[in-house]
Formats: sequence, structure tokens, C-alpha cells
Amino acid sequence: MYFVGVDIGGTGIQAGIVNNNGEILFRKECITRVNEGFETIIDDINKLVSELLSENNLDIKEIKSIGFCVPGFINKKGLVTCVNLGWKEVNFIEAIKNKFPEVSVYAENDATVAAVAEAKFGSMKNKDVAVMYTLGTGVGGGIIINERPFTGAHGVGSEIGHTIIGENYYNCNCGSNGCLETFCSATAIIKYAQKLIEEGNKSIILDMADNNIENINAKMVFDAFRENDFVAVETINRFKNYLAKAMGSMINTLDPDIISIGGGVSRASDIILNDIKDLVRKYIVYKNEEFADIVCATLGADAGIIGAAFLQ
Amino acid sequence: MYFVGVDIGGTGIQAGIVNNNGEILFRKECITRVNEGFETIIDDINKLVSELLSENNLDIKEIKSIGFCVPGFINKKGLVTCVNLGWKEVNFIEAIKNKFPEVSVYAENDATVAAVAEAKFGSMKNKDVAVMYTLGTGVGGGIIINERPFTGAHGVGSEIGHTIIGENYYNCNCGSNGCLETFCSATAIIKYAQKLIEEGNKSIILDMADNNIENINAKMVFDAFRENDFVAVETINRFKNYLAKAMGSMINTLDPDIISIGGGVSRASDIILNDIKDLVRKYIVYKNEEFADIVCATLGADAGIIGAAFLQ
Repeated sequence: MYFVGVDIGGTGIQAGIVNNNGEILFRKECITRVNEGFETIIDDINKLVSELLSENNLDIKEIKSIGFCVPGFINKKGLVTCVNLGWKEVNFIEAIKNKFPEVSVYAENDATVAAVAEAKFGSMKNKDVAVMYTLGTGVGGGIIINERPFTGAHGVGSEIGHTIIGENYYNCNCGSNGCLETFCSATAIIKYAQKLIEEGNKSIILDMADNNIENINAKMVFDAFRENDFVAVETINRFKNYLAKAMGSMINTLDPDIISIGGGVSRASDIILNDIKDLVRKYIVYKNEEFADIVCATLGADAGIIGAAFLQ
Repeated sequence: MYFVGVDIGGTGIQAGIVNNNGEILFRKECITRVNEGFETIIDDINKLVSELLSENNLDIKEIKSIGFCVPGFINKKGLVTCVNLGWKEVNFIEAIKNKFPEVSVYAENDATVAAVAEAKFGSMKNKDVAVMYTLGTGVGGGIIINERPFTGAHGVGSEIGHTIIGENYYNCNCGSNGCLETFCSATAIIKYAQKLIEEGNKSIILDMADNNIENINAKMVFDAFRENDFVAVETINRFKNYLAKAMGSMINTLDPDIISIGGGVSRASDIILNDIKDLVRKYIVYKNEEFADIVCATLGADAGIIGAAFLQ
């Protein structure tokens, strides 16, 4: 048997045929026609998956399930809300089931799906309690308890980017102040480096950005950190310290076996993991007890397709 | 069958015979002879439980299990550490089993035990995901997932008093800054009221405390809040706001069915619950979705014996 995983993003939809070992055998993608509305996207997904199967001589009967990774959340009633796609409580599962009545259909939040993939085949394999921080434009989270994704009583949990861990100089998109997302996302890193430069600090980051502060990205800040640039060191040390506060709080609360860092920011794993365990120890209560291993994710962008394929 | 629950505190040990309905039928207590060492306390517990049974004509064969509520934590290996009792990784379970080889023996952290009791017979009954905040001298926590206490992979989780939720003007006993415990414990309330008075603010709290700032307790601050005293209003509003931040973060992370507030501070439930749900809504991501009910604990000090009796 095979599994189909579909990763729905704001710009593209990627589908893959996945085997029992979590290997993506075949893949196909299309653009996300957000402006055409929900029904068009459902039709596009139908076409994408049907073609993926037929082009590879697979029959729907050989597919155990189709899982979806969505950039939003699924509530208790199974209704999907994705702000970026303009979906508000749409009956996504039913719409897909109408197209593929023969197979089981599942959907989960993208950060949770990534955690499922990492727990099954990647950095968090064989761990009972695992937490994944996806550090990208925002901060997403996935919680695995007893090898199953945990999203709470109403399906709106694991939004660990919106745990409050301090007081910040700008508010979060969610309306709160002090969310982890405003300290530890790529956006937060960019904003803080920009702020320090605007305050008059010289930095090689500005050279990298062709002297246009708007061009700064997180990679430049990490690269400048390696050059011991003052602005970059200040920015990354602040990022690390708040990430350690969040992870320390998580260890004090859920005490996971493992914490994995994914998302674009994790590409600087050499810098992030360097001393994060020492920093985390400062914030945990039982400093002499064994605590969660902290690692970087291993599946990269494929985690969306792989995790979606193994939802159940 | 009956259950025995034993609540070990820093000053006294309380044992109770509990029936299937969570009712304490008989009870007996003794002092905690902390200075006499671990073996003496084990002997005292043996005597206490044996007498409790014999005085009520019960045979050990009628007892299904003996559970203990301890003011510390139990690690992965089952070893118990209680700073207040001078216990460091003691093999408590084995020591008790040697005294009562006929029955199952369990032990858990006091805040977790209280959550077990509230989940089985009190304010959090019949809820899949439940979180209890015990607001007393410190802040303890209990997490229930699928009706079972959840303490994490190494047994050191559910210490939600040590989640970092801001920056505070004094450090926590654990060494961190910004722990919930430093904003929302009785101690935190007292300290903040004292600080405002020391800064020159007039307050009826000082009259209640016979003009000695050291005499201030949390009850006085809540009583003064009812009188619209400036210092009390500032202190309690700050307390509520940080409690809402912590609960909002918890809802974003674990999305429980219910959150229950226990401990001494919960006796001011009329003041705490008043507007906490509105405040919490400010800090949750999915403001339009259903979220956890917030209530006060109902079992009071008996939660220790009852919860301990139903550990498994």
C-alpha cells in the first residue's frame, strides 16, 4: 500500500506518493489559485492527485489514505480555517472525500504535520513525548504525545509561537505582546537587526543587503554572526536567549523526550544548537535531572508531504 | 474495596481511607518529623496507616492501593526528591512497599495529585484535557491528559509555576526571572503590595497588618481589593493580567477542556474568576473558537488525600 501526502501552501500545492518507509516515490505540484476560491482549489487538488496516480500507473485502490498539510487549523468539528487562503470554517475533509470516496482523508495544521513526519521518520523518531518548533516567517509548533499529534480539546492547541515569554518592543500579529514569535521567528531576527542598525550601529549586514535595510533577511544575520558582527551577535544572542526561555518553560511544563527545531531558521543549526542546551538549563527547575535532547529537524521541506501521508 | 491516600506535607502527614466515590471515610494524622530523617518518616507512615486501618476494623486485604502526595517530584527511575523534607532521590516507593507488600504503592507530586482528585471527583470531572494551577506560597501545576496525570518523559513536567511569562523586578527561587510563580503566587501578591506601600502609596492593607508591612498576607490584599483600595487594585489587577497571560499561553499550547484554579489564592474565587475569561481571550490566538472553561477547584485541602488514593 501507498500513502498520498498533500502540502497546501499559500503559493503552491505539492503532492507526493509515499511508501511505508516514508520515502516520497513520486511527486507533482501546482500553484495555489487562492483568488479563485475554495472550490477551484479542491478541483485543482483532485486533478493533481488523480494525475499523480495515473502518471505513475497507480490505482486509488492501492492508496491507504490521503492526508493534507494546511496552513491553518482544524477545529473540533473538522472545519478548516486558513487565513492566507481565505478559508473560514470550510468543510475541507468532506469536499475531498467527495472526490476520493474510496480512501480515508485527513488534514492537520502544517506545523503539526511536520512534527508527525519528524516523529515517524526524522529527528524525533521513537520518542514518546516530542515537541517541534518550526521557526520561519512565524513560529509554529507540533506536539507529539505517545506517537500521536496532540492539538488539544478543541483542535486549536500546539500554537507554541504564541506563548508569552517576555515583553517586546512591538506587538505580535495575534494582538498580544511578548509572543515567542516576536522574539524567535526569521521576521523577529530581521526586525531586531534593522532596529539596531537604525539606532546607528554599523554592521556588515547592511553591505550584504546592498545598503537597503529592507533587503535584510535572516540568512544575512546568521552569516554576519559568523563574522562576529556586533549587530548580528546582539540579535542572535537575543534570539537564542528567548528560544531557551521558551524551551525551558516547555521542559518545565511538558518535559518532552526531545525538542526539534525546524523551519528556515534551523538551517543555521551550527549556530543555534551550539550552546542552546546550556542556555536552556538556566531556565529549567530540575537542573540536575535528565531533560529533553534539543536537535534540528532532518526532513526539511519534505516533512509536509511525508507527515500528511501518515496522518490518521 | 477501599483506597488509602496519604498527603505528606512539610509539617504534617494526613492519611485517609477513601471509598470508590472519592469520599474520605476515616482519617488520621501525625506530624512530619523532618529532622529525624527519611527512615523515621517511613516508620511514622507505617504506624499511621496501620493504626488507621486497625482503628476502623479494616484489613490490608480490603485496600486496593496506597497512594502518596509528596511535596517534591518523582523522577523517571521512581526516586523521590523533596527539598523541604531533605529527601534527595530516595527510594520512597520501595521503602513503603517493604512495609505494605500486599498492596500497590504509588506517589506523585502534590500539585499533580490535586489535579487527579479534581479530575476524578471535583471541578475537572469528565474532561479529557485538564490543567490545574495551584496558587499558594508558590505556583504548582497538574496536567491531566485522557484522565491520567501527565508529568512528561522524565517525570519532571507540569511545573507550570516556572513557565516564563514576563520580566519581573525580583528573581524566582529557581534562579530564573519572569516565572509565573513570581507574578501569581500568594508570595508574589504580598511582595507587590509591600513594594507599592514602600513606594509611598497609602493603603488600608497596612492598617489590616497592624502597621507592620511584614504582617501582610494575600487575604488582606483581596479584602482590600473589595474595598477598592488603590494598592490592592493595582496588585490584584497585575496578578490577574499575568495569570491570564499564563492561561492564554497554556490554551495556545495544550488547548485544555478546562482550567481549574486551586490553592489558597483560589479562596478569592469571586475576585479571580470575575473577568479572567475576558482577560484570557486577549492572549489566545483563535479568539472566535471555543476555549477552556476556567473554574475554581472544589475539593480544597482534601484533594491531597483523595487524589493520592486514586493514583495508579
